[in-house]
Amino acid sequence: MYSYKTLQELVNKEIALGGFVKEPKQLYEPIKYILSLGGKRIRPVFVLMACNLFSNKIENAINAALALEIFHNFTLLHDDIMDKSSLRRNKPTVHTKWNSNIAILSGDAMSIIAYEYITRVKSDNFLELINVFNKTALQVCEGQQYDMNFETEKLVSETNYLQMIKLKTAVLISASLKIGALIGEASQEDTELLYLFGINIGIAFQIQDDFLDVYADTKVFGKKIGNDILTNKKTYLLIKAFELAKEHDYEELYNKFFIDNNPSEEKVHSVVNIYNKLGIKEIAQNKIAEYFNKAFSYLDKVSVSTERKKELASFVKNSLINRDK
Amino acid sequence: MYSYKTLQELVNKEIALGGFVKEPKQLYEPIKYILSLGGKRIRPVFVLMACNLFSNKIENAINAALALEIFHNFTLLHDDIMDKSSLRRNKPTVHTKWNSNIAILSGDAMSIIAYEYITRVKSDNFLELINVFNKTALQVCEGQQYDMNFETEKLVSETNYLQMIKLKTAVLISASLKIGALIGEASQEDTELLYLFGINIGIAFQIQDDFLDVYADTKVFGKKIGNDILTNKKTYLLIKAFELAKEHDYEELYNKFFIDNNPSEEKVHSVVNIYNKLGIKEIAQNKIAEYFNKAFSYLDKVSVSTERKKELASFVKNSLINRDK
Repeated sequence: MYSYKTLQELVNKEIALGGFVKEPKQLYEPIKYILSLGGKRIRPVFVLMACNLFSNKIENAINAALALEIFHNFTLLHDDIMDKSSLRRNKPTVHTKWNSNIAILSGDAMSIIAYEYITRVKSDNFLELINVFNKTALQVCEGQQYDMNFETEKLVSETNYLQMIKLKTAVLISASLKIGALIGEASQEDTELLYLFGINIGIAFQIQDDFLDVYADTKVFGKKIGNDILTNKKTYLLIKAFELAKEHDYEELYNKFFIDNNPSEEKVHSVVNIYNKLGIKEIAQNKIAEYFNKAFSYLDKVSVSTERKKELASFVKNSLINRDK
Repeated sequence: MYSYKTLQELVNKEIALGGFVKEPKQLYEPIKYILSLGGKRIRPVFVLMACNLFSNKIENAINAALALEIFHNFTLLHDDIMDKSSLRRNKPTVHTKWNSNIAILSGDAMSIIAYEYITRVKSDNFLELINVFNKTALQVCEGQQYDMNFETEKLVSETNYLQMIKLKTAVLISASLKIGALIGEASQEDTELLYLFGINIGIAFQIQDDFLDVYADTKVFGKKIGNDILTNKKTYLLIKAFELAKEHDYEELYNKFFIDNNPSEEKVHSVVNIYNKLGIKEIAQNKIAEYFNKAFSYLDKVSVSTERKKELASFVKNSLINRDK
């Protein structure tokens, strides 16, 4: 079984070999740039690990792995324009370093390049695989649209929020696992179990992101606390707080987000205060644990030995679950 | 053989059936909107006509036809953001009617939907077909990037201009014909001949667009004369004028475009004056004729009867060549 580190290095090596140094350079340089910003390479590693559960020929899955990573970075590139984000992994975003037009067009090209990589996959399951990719890609767009809609909605229900993060984040993670399993020629049942494992990991992962914005150990997490609160982002924590807050607390939350709306330290302080009073920390922790446990109950059922699942399980546990430690 | 009118109606019917009324509506409504703005449906008709040259089962090509039309409209949608165009077929562009974020995201979704349609094509040549689609889609992005680069370049050579319009416009037209031929199970030679026919038609078509901006019969063409001149667009006419103008004429052109740069009737008048003095009208007409003749020399060699080629030939001649009449 290949370790996370080996697979991550393989992905980075293949990206470096990807040959994104072509003409016109204004189109291809931003692609090379965003792909070189690094990151955990979660999705391509998931493709390779899922394939590796069933097959030792992970080289069959490398093109699909790159397709998923390139597609993911395409969505980041366009999301950054839409969210007007100036930084990505502490580096200037493409539309900041170049301009919006360049960012739109190089993103468009990345989406096509992702399809080029998918098309290169040699697999008896090719048609199913590309159908999974198409469906997932469209769901990610739907998720981003719901997320943008939420910006102007005052009350978002937990159900709608969970549906949004499922589409925006979880389906691409689960599709990575499913596509890897298809290339590894897993049974239909195992493929579906890995898909469900991925969906639940993805949702847990996103709620954890929301959680860490407020409750992370800043020394380890490396981000400023409360950025989501400052930017009025609809998070699992905020949605639960609005759901549970009564009278004075509700009024204060409403005031801080929709009337006063002053992005100050004081806002973070008083919102976190309400979160603490309402037990939002424990509610979120329980929800994350619930999704992680559900995820692992699916992984347990995949019909390969526990030994073969070790790398995937420990990658998820060490790199994803224990992110703030 | 199916007529242009029949095929155009078939395409419009299939677009109406496409079911772009899904949730979230903010994502899908702009897609339905831009696809309903109409137009000649040149690319999907080319797919169907090319298939029909070799096969009577044009229903095998309808998904590919829609893929090409949806991809084309996706590029228009994003180009309109980049060019800050407020009108498309006399209706508000998507980013004007909604906003830029909606236009970016619904464009992204359209590109994926185009791939969904391509994936639905049942053909023994599926892999070649999707490779043609991938390569062409990326070339269109490259063409758009070169076009944007030209905006800030003072001198663009004829060679570079022709290469740009080949990428931005001609390859999608020729890919439409090639994909139709592949679905119709044409021989490799005929497929390639149709591709070359399309490239030359596409280039002729774009130069003619440049030509009609200045020399169209306005009553028929329906556009204002000289819009390209007012907006400083690099056209075949302007590039040739800069190449051929001497002394005073060159200075005047340079002044009108790069120093004075006043988008007035007077600018149009004096630039057209220089065009006339330099014989740009005839040069452009000859170039268009050269590409059209070259195109038809390839079509002539396609190994099906002249009778079978009649619809395609007359569609190109009546709808494309004689556009201003």
